[in-house]
Amino acid sequence: MQSSLTKAQSPSVAVEKTPRTQGDSELAARYLEIRKSTEALCEPLAVEDYVIQTMTDVSPTKWHLAHTSWFFETFVLVADGSSGYKPLDERYRYLFNSYYKGVGEAHCRNRRGVLSRPTVEEIYRYRHYVDEHVVGLLEKAGQGDSGRLRELITLGLNHEQQHQELILTDIKYVFWCNPTRPAYHASRAAGGGTTEALRWHRFDEGLYWTGHSGDGFGYDNESPRHRVFLEPFQIASRPVTNGEFAAFIDDGGYRRPELWLSDGWDTVEANEWQAPLYWEHGDGGLQVMTLAGMRALNEHVPVCHVSYYEANAFARWAGGRLPTEAEWEVACGAAPMEGNFAENGVYQPICGSGCDSDLTPSKMFGDVWEWTASAYTAYPGYAPAGGALGEYNGKFMSNQMVSRGGSCATPQSHIRRTYRNFFAPSARWQFMGIRLAKNGET
Amino acid sequence: MQSSLTKAQSPSVAVEKTPRTQGDSELAARYLEIRKSTEALCEPLAVEDYVIQTMTDVSPTKWHLAHTSWFFETFVLVADGSSGYKPLDERYRYLFNSYYKGVGEAHCRNRRGVLSRPTVEEIYRYRHYVDEHVVGLLEKAGQGDSGRLRELITLGLNHEQQHQELILTDIKYVFWCNPTRPAYHASRAAGGGTTEALRWHRFDEGLYWTGHSGDGFGYDNESPRHRVFLEPFQIASRPVTNGEFAAFIDDGGYRRPELWLSDGWDTVEANEWQAPLYWEHGDGGLQVMTLAGMRALNEHVPVCHVSYYEANAFARWAGGRLPTEAEWEVACGAAPMEGNFAENGVYQPICGSGCDSDLTPSKMFGDVWEWTASAYTAYPGYAPAGGALGEYNGKFMSNQMVSRGGSCATPQSHIRRTYRNFFAPSARWQFMGIRLAKNGET
Amino acid sequence: MQSSLTKAQSPSVAVEKTPRTQGDSELAARYLEIRKSTEALCEPLAVEDYVIQTMTDVSPTKWHLAHTSWFFETFVLVADGSSGYKPLDERYRYLFNSYYKGVGEAHCRNRRGVLSRPTVEEIYRYRHYVDEHVVGLLEKAGQGDSGRLRELITLGLNHEQQHQELILTDIKYVFWCNPTRPAYHASRAAGGGTTEALRWHRFDEGLYWTGHSGDGFGYDNESPRHRVFLEPFQIASRPVTNGEFAAFIDDGGYRRPELWLSDGWDTVEANEWQAPLYWEHGDGGLQVMTLAGMRALNEHVPVCHVSYYEANAFARWAGGRLPTEAEWEVACGAAPMEGNFAENGVYQPICGSGCDSDLTPSKMFGDVWEWTASAYTAYPGYAPAGGALGEYNGKFMSNQMVSRGGSCATPQSHIRRTYRNFFAPSARWQFMGIRLAKNGET
Amino acid sequence: MQSSLTKAQSPSVAVEKTPRTQGDSELAARYLEIRKSTEALCEPLAVEDYVIQTMTDVSPTKWHLAHTSWFFETFVLVADGSSGYKPLDERYRYLFNSYYKGVGEAHCRNRRGVLSRPTVEEIYRYRHYVDEHVVGLLEKAGQGDSGRLRELITLGLNHEQQHQELILTDIKYVFWCNPTRPAYHASRAAGGGTTEALRWHRFDEGLYWTGHSGDGFGYDNESPRHRVFLEPFQIASRPVTNGEFAAFIDDGGYRRPELWLSDGWDTVEANEWQAPLYWEHGDGGLQVMTLAGMRALNEHVPVCHVSYYEANAFARWAGGRLPTEAEWEVACGAAPMEGNFAENGVYQPICGSGCDSDLTPSKMFGDVWEWTASAYTAYPGYAPAGGALGEYNGKFMSNQMVSRGGSCATPQSHIRRTYRNFFAPSARWQFMGIRLAKNGET
Repeated sequence: MQSSLTKAQSPSVAVEKTPRTQGDSELAARYLEIRKSTEALCEPLAVEDYVIQTMTDVSPTKWHLAHTSWFFETFVLVADGSSGYKPLDERYRYLFNSYYKGVGEAHCRNRRGVLSRPTVEEIYRYRHYVDEHVVGLLEKAGQGDSGRLRELITLGLNHEQQHQELILTDIKYVFWCNPTRPAYHASRAAGGGTTEALRWHRFDEGLYWTGHSGDGFGYDNESPRHRVFLEPFQIASRPVTNGEFAAFIDDGGYRRPELWLSDGWDTVEANEWQAPLYWEHGDGGLQVMTLAGMRALNEHVPVCHVSYYEANAFARWAGGRLPTEAEWEVACGAAPMEGNFAENGVYQPICGSGCDSDLTPSKMFGDVWEWTASAYTAYPGYAPAGGALGEYNGKFMSNQMVSRGGSCATPQSHIRRTYRNFFAPSARWQFMGIRLAKNGET
Repeated sequence: MQSSLTKAQSPSVAVEKTPRTQGDSELAARYLEIRKSTEALCEPLAVEDYVIQTMTDVSPTKWHLAHTSWFFETFVLVADGSSGYKPLDERYRYLFNSYYKGVGEAHCRNRRGVLSRPTVEEIYRYRHYVDEHVVGLLEKAGQGDSGRLRELITLGLNHEQQHQELILTDIKYVFWCNPTRPAYHASRAAGGGTTEALRWHRFDEGLYWTGHSGDGFGYDNESPRHRVFLEPFQIASRPVTNGEFAAFIDDGGYRRPELWLSDGWDTVEANEWQAPLYWEHGDGGLQVMTLAGMRALNEHVPVCHVSYYEANAFARWAGGRLPTEAEWEVACGAAPMEGNFAENGVYQPICGSGCDSDLTPSKMFGDVWEWTASAYTAYPGYAPAGGALGEYNGKFMSNQMVSRGGSCATPQSHIRRTYRNFFAPSARWQFMGIRLAKNGET
Repeated sequence: MQSSLTKAQSPSVAVEKTPRTQGDSELAARYLEIRKSTEALCEPLAVEDYVIQTMTDVSPTKWHLAHTSWFFETFVLVADGSSGYKPLDERYRYLFNSYYKGVGEAHCRNRRGVLSRPTVEEIYRYRHYVDEHVVGLLEKAGQGDSGRLRELITLGLNHEQQHQELILTDIKYVFWCNPTRPAYHASRAAGGGTTEALRWHRFDEGLYWTGHSGDGFGYDNESPRHRVFLEPFQIASRPVTNGEFAAFIDDGGYRRPELWLSDGWDTVEANEWQAPLYWEHGDGGLQVMTLAGMRALNEHVPVCHVSYYEANAFARWAGGRLPTEAEWEVACGAAPMEGNFAENGVYQPICGSGCDSDLTPSKMFGDVWEWTASAYTAYPGYAPAGGALGEYNGKFMSNQMVSRGGSCATPQSHIRRTYRNFFAPSARWQFMGIRLAKNGET
Repeated sequence: MQSSLTKAQSPSVAVEKTPRTQGDSELAARYLEIRKSTEALCEPLAVEDYVIQTMTDVSPTKWHLAHTSWFFETFVLVADGSSGYKPLDERYRYLFNSYYKGVGEAHCRNRRGVLSRPTVEEIYRYRHYVDEHVVGLLEKAGQGDSGRLRELITLGLNHEQQHQELILTDIKYVFWCNPTRPAYHASRAAGGGTTEALRWHRFDEGLYWTGHSGDGFGYDNESPRHRVFLEPFQIASRPVTNGEFAAFIDDGGYRRPELWLSDGWDTVEANEWQAPLYWEHGDGGLQVMTLAGMRALNEHVPVCHVSYYEANAFARWAGGRLPTEAEWEVACGAAPMEGNFAENGVYQPICGSGCDSDLTPSKMFGDVWEWTASAYTAYPGYAPAGGALGEYNGKFMSNQMVSRGGSCATPQSHIRRTYRNFFAPSARWQFMGIRLAKNGET
């Protein structure tokens, strides 16, 4: 049997290459570029918008700005004992720690919105103070001994990009909580379009490689690369659309317990869910909250802001199921890693495949994170990073489901085929959508 | 028996006079003065400070600014159908209604902190828009038919003053919720001082008049003026001090259930109370949060930020009791209506009686609201105002206790001998203190 | 003025006499009679019925049986150090303490239903063990020195009678929680009847005596007797009926916030109240849960199982108000202390005045406890009993409203004109009803 | 690659055989035997013990007795339209439905303890009524067409056995909630013993078959049989003992967040966990609640009543991890399916391996359910049973972790190598223990 293992199929037809030998000045430039792009996201905001927290999962914008700086301060500047770095304000160590117990106590997560001070201006000052020191450290660092430093900064930049997405998803929720429904920006999304017919892409049974190859950056939870045996399966050529989800609703989807997981049904009843988050009945039909304010629902774009429970119930109703994360990763093997990402500046799912070919499923990347049927657990042989950084991903491996592929709020340079995002099955405020799978037929 | 009733003793030795024939231009001037003093209170605040809500009882500063304007808009400008007034923004009708169900739905009280918009600047614009129209209305109003208008504006100004106090008490709580403990202003309170010996003022049994005379402004809940029979009683010459309350704590006050009301003890245990709100153990001994930040506790000033439960337990421990509101009103009869009010700009209780005479208890007014033993219920013959304004006071007559005398955050021109403030017995964030009473001796 | 006070009107035209010189053997007989009548109330129950607790306010029947025995054990047998009494089981000291912190820790109130053991049989054994010792103590006691003993036993018997009422009200709630709606007994209530026209009894303004005279037994909270000045008032000749309350409902009573206290409206919304407790729409019209199971609602009998909030809202809707407790006590002055009490064995309000005279309001006693407008606070000069028995009444003097007159589940020998019952304003599971009052007319 | 798959290793060295051609009279006999053994478990109980529910997860004994009968009534008697079966009481359809929404509404799970009626006696009558009809149906059934009937009865008997275990685990929790700590039975567990040295059993990487073969009964969630690729791994020769877990506690296990999953640590803090459920400090050292009452902790027996969070934290502390369910199933391949099961009548883990051989890990079966690292999700190709019976297992596939092997409260005839039990990661009231695994070494 062993011999067959060497033949295990690799899902990564064209593995992305991230530069491993990037020089420190290049890294400094990249650091400043990503840090500045975070601030650029905040340009449309009033000072008041930075401050508030409207549910526990949502953090104030200014907290994101501060916490990402705290991350560099804690794991790069302070951790580097030789740098002589002095924190701008010792109290920030506590205030802007999220959940890293290994580096000390943290301000309570659901109390992030009680902090009017430090002010937004003070937090920008903190950001720039940290930036100055990080860049200084990079400038000082010799090529030879800066491997660990570059690793940490790369990690910090990926962390920063995660919070870029959160800034968008959180401010959307903040604005939705306001009965006046402010808009973050003017709409750039075109209406109309068509829904392409759904086709199924088939994959054979077999032993497949999955997980991160070690080539370029990846979070610890994507490793080690390992083999998974898959039964034959099929995966849909595109995500489920608003129109298709509306048909589920019209067919009593939210009133039929037989379609739902038990916890899902309890959640539906407790929260009186009747549609995805952000859907509302308006004068001219279904409306949906977007970062451009309330808009008419476009039936042709991927459905978004559904929980795992809703994704699972929809799949059952549709006669399919959700793909496992391994199936998803295998299925996206040849797809180009392109799509409707944050760089588009649209920040909502759009119409059109972004993919000319029939060979691969479309929209595997961008538009919406796709819920998988896989609980978020450790890969075989998984070892969390050492120290407090081991808390980054590993300690969340219970009660969460994996989603894949990135969304319209994810920076394109942040995503990977092996990227494992994870959320509680009841979470809806992220740009989460649905792609169907089904068992292979003989 | 009837004859005796005409001899009923009046507690009001020197009844305050408020101008009944104030001209409209005088009223306009007073209107602008009070409205501007509200804004003056906000001068030390950063934009961020205006926005957040850190518990349900506490409203954001900008909400106070908007709601007080809403009050004039709703009950003066809109109610006056002839004025042709057009609201600046129709959505404010809902957003800034507090609890007047008679004029429509209101935004949920514990969600006032989820509104980043309208911005602080927009709310100031709203205030000034309303001011312009109110002043315009007053200018137009003829002397003869403006009685109702002047009544409503007077009510609105008293309402405004209540919110001036709330702006201070709420921002204090907001700052206390912040681990960095910001200061609202620089301290103007002198330390040190002495505690004067406690004396008891005696009052005979008898039938006393209590309640508002109808002379000058009063809330509906202070009326009608009526007779109350009192047994002989004694009232303390000054409020309980921090030092005295510290002795209660040292004697196990928070650990001895026999001193507490049953609901009080449950509250102590549920919240793990061990001292008044804002007390903390610091390096140099007991510290207390003030609007000037954390300060050493001054044992000579009146204790503050205690609940009714704590006041009641302290009184039991001290061998006394709290006065009823009728006793309090009788006892303050001859006392000058002076004291440490908001106009002092100190915003914390201070040392010294502010009263040279032995004839009357000191500090009946200002420094701290004094909890009474009286539940907040209707006076005999009480009739709430008509329409939605009847909701101002009347609908809160359950589960609340009366306090009297005003505090260091109350405008002096706002208080009266007959003024009935009311809070839940567990409330502590107001400047609430304790004055002891006991039964008369033969 | 003092002279007039001696003329204060006494509400007690015919003060009840309870024997002050009852011999100890008479007391022993009375003890056994009351103790046995408690057990007689339990005869219809299955063992299973004794065990469960369906909300915090409701205690299991077996807990009532044990706690009343614990009361005698603790305050009579154990307190009497000379008796050499040995508790049957030391663990009962903790298990069956209700809230007397002065005698030790108590089992958590809302966990009384988690105790399958001791069994019902064991608890009866405990009762009889206590009975044997109490009777033995009484037999031993000399006439001269047994005053305190007799006081304590009298208190214990009144306590026992309170729990007799609670056994009935609690088992009613327990059976109502069961979808099969078991019946405690066969119905003895006649249907039909008529509603007598409502008349108003007027009382003049004046200084009245209220509170317990010291003649016969009374709880500490009924003392001291003291004077109260009342404005002229009127009180209804009978309680509000089911039919009248149904008219309130039909007129949108539960949908009109302007009728309600603020806390009341919040309670209505939170609990989706649409009618009194136990009312339901059935096939043949309105049904109501009784101790004889579900029955058609009789419009002519006093409405029952309403909260203070509902009583207050109804009164406002009807253009009246609730009487204060002093008004109630004055008004009942000449009424015979008769009515539909527990001894009737009907356990629901009935039709008919039980009173031939037009001179006094009917049904002041029995049928339903009548909510008053008075918060439950201390009478002037009130001093709680010493030691742990001081916890009986005094520590509940916050957040409760007084009700008066006893109900169809109260033993007749237990009630007094001065009796102050008290419940949270949201409580409905007792037999609570409404009598209207209004201000006097000139 | 395909060829290698046919060589996939089967974990089932000696597959158990359950009779596929059991005659109907044999099945009737087995039916009665299992149904009676349920009742035999209740013999030690007082009537009161049957009634109460002390947390949502725990059901009253009488509910178990009724629900298991309801299961046969609903899925065998009523479903068989030809039988003319008339339910004993139509109301039981609602009262004793657990969660099968496909057959109608169910009484609320956390309100099972509010039902004093039907009485225990009535429920036994219900059981026997159902038994009579089931046996009657089996007697009538011809050999040829009774396949579906026999399937349903077999399912019902397995369901019955699950509730046998729950009767024991639930009554243990009920008795523990009682401060008097009653005993269910006299102890039959020997004290003392020794702890055998821990050894590791190694397994090679490879493609293994897992899941139910279709031979004999299995729940739908154990199917279909499918292949899993495993990396090399090692599994411990025995479960973790009390002594080993005590060392974890002594080493600060419950105070070190770095050992815990994030949700686990939150649970520890919220519930102030400091040890497994049922552990207490007594006069003579650590005590533990058992069905024989409080007993001294035996350090040599498997630790029990730990949550998944505790199992996971212990494993991390010990330098290992938990096995996946596939690893567990592979590892138990050759082990005899023997152990300390319910038939022993001990109902607590015991000392000794019950296994003479070094060839297989000991105690894989019985003593304690062993938490695995696997979230409870669908096997590839899983299809739930049709109709309401599809709700049996499938709808719980979120937020639960798989445990394996059965416990001292599981009937031996109920367990299988492929049996998947599942509980929330915070659950502790079942007999849940820990077996360590680790990665294979080269």
